[in-house]
Amino acid sequence: MPRSRFAASLSTPKVEVAIDMGHPLLNVTVDGFLKIGTVAATRSAAEDVYHIVKKGSLSRHNVEQTLKKMCKEGAYWGTVAGVYVGMEYGMQRIRGTRDWKNAMIGGALTGALVSAASSNNKDKVVMDTITGGAIATAAEFLNYLI
Amino acid sequence: MPRSRFAASLSTPKVEVAIDMGHPLLNVTVDGFLKIGTVAATRSAAEDVYHIVKKGSLSRHNVEQTLKKMCKEGAYWGTVAGVYVGMEYGMQRIRGTRDWKNAMIGGALTGALVSAASSNNKDKVVMDTITGGAIATAAEFLNYLI
Repeated sequence: MPRSRFAASLSTPKVEVAIDMGHPLLNVTVDGFLKIGTVAATRSAAEDVYHIVKKGSLSRHNVEQTLKKMCKEGAYWGTVAGVYVGMEYGMQRIRGTRDWKNAMIGGALTGALVSAASSNNKDKVVMDTITGGAIATAAEFLNYLI
Repeated sequence: MPRSRFAASLSTPKVEVAIDMGHPLLNVTVDGFLKIGTVAATRSAAEDVYHIVKKGSLSRHNVEQTLKKMCKEGAYWGTVAGVYVGMEYGMQRIRGTRDWKNAMIGGALTGALVSAASSNNKDKVVMDTITGGAIATAAEFLNYLI
């Protein structure tokens, strides 16, 4: 008597990408770009899927736009993350220790750099520097809490 | 012959606050509130100091406003962080492990809760849920990079 069996397994995606660039600074930077870029692209896709599901219709135009937005957001956040990771790595090498001050300085420099690259408003660059430092410090603190 | 000596030492502030509330969940929540609240208040103060220095004048009104803004921002970000830390702690207890999925779910729930508490727009709540999950996942990834 034939028996049928059904086995299903649900596994969440593993995010493991490693590309060896030959130098630790490049490695962490590329790693940061890829990982945070993936997160940002996923977030962008999830947002668009919600909008499409809500509207109830899916056209080729939607899919194209979603893909474009995913690439754009992924590249932007990936770049920011890559710069930040590189900065924090540099801070670690210069200061010789690893603590929240690395994160603060790295975040502030990243905020300054990204802001200066995208706008000419001096006030905005200063604000982004302060905000970048604050966000990085907060993320670093959250780390050690749990 | 008298000799004068001058010794200066510069030490950065240590952020160490620990209040025992008798339960680990309360402990991490209060800890998150205090630490992230401090970061947010400092950021707010730094922003205002920049504006005051730029304007070149300091009045009593400025100081009062800065203090008020510090308290408001500190309380807001502290609450968000406390909710997030509590959520991630809860996830950790329920799932029994600690990985980026905890951060993602905790961040998404925090985004949903904070957004639902402050607005009635359903679309905005969904977007904030997605963004909360993405930010928490990104912060968790950055952790392991460096």
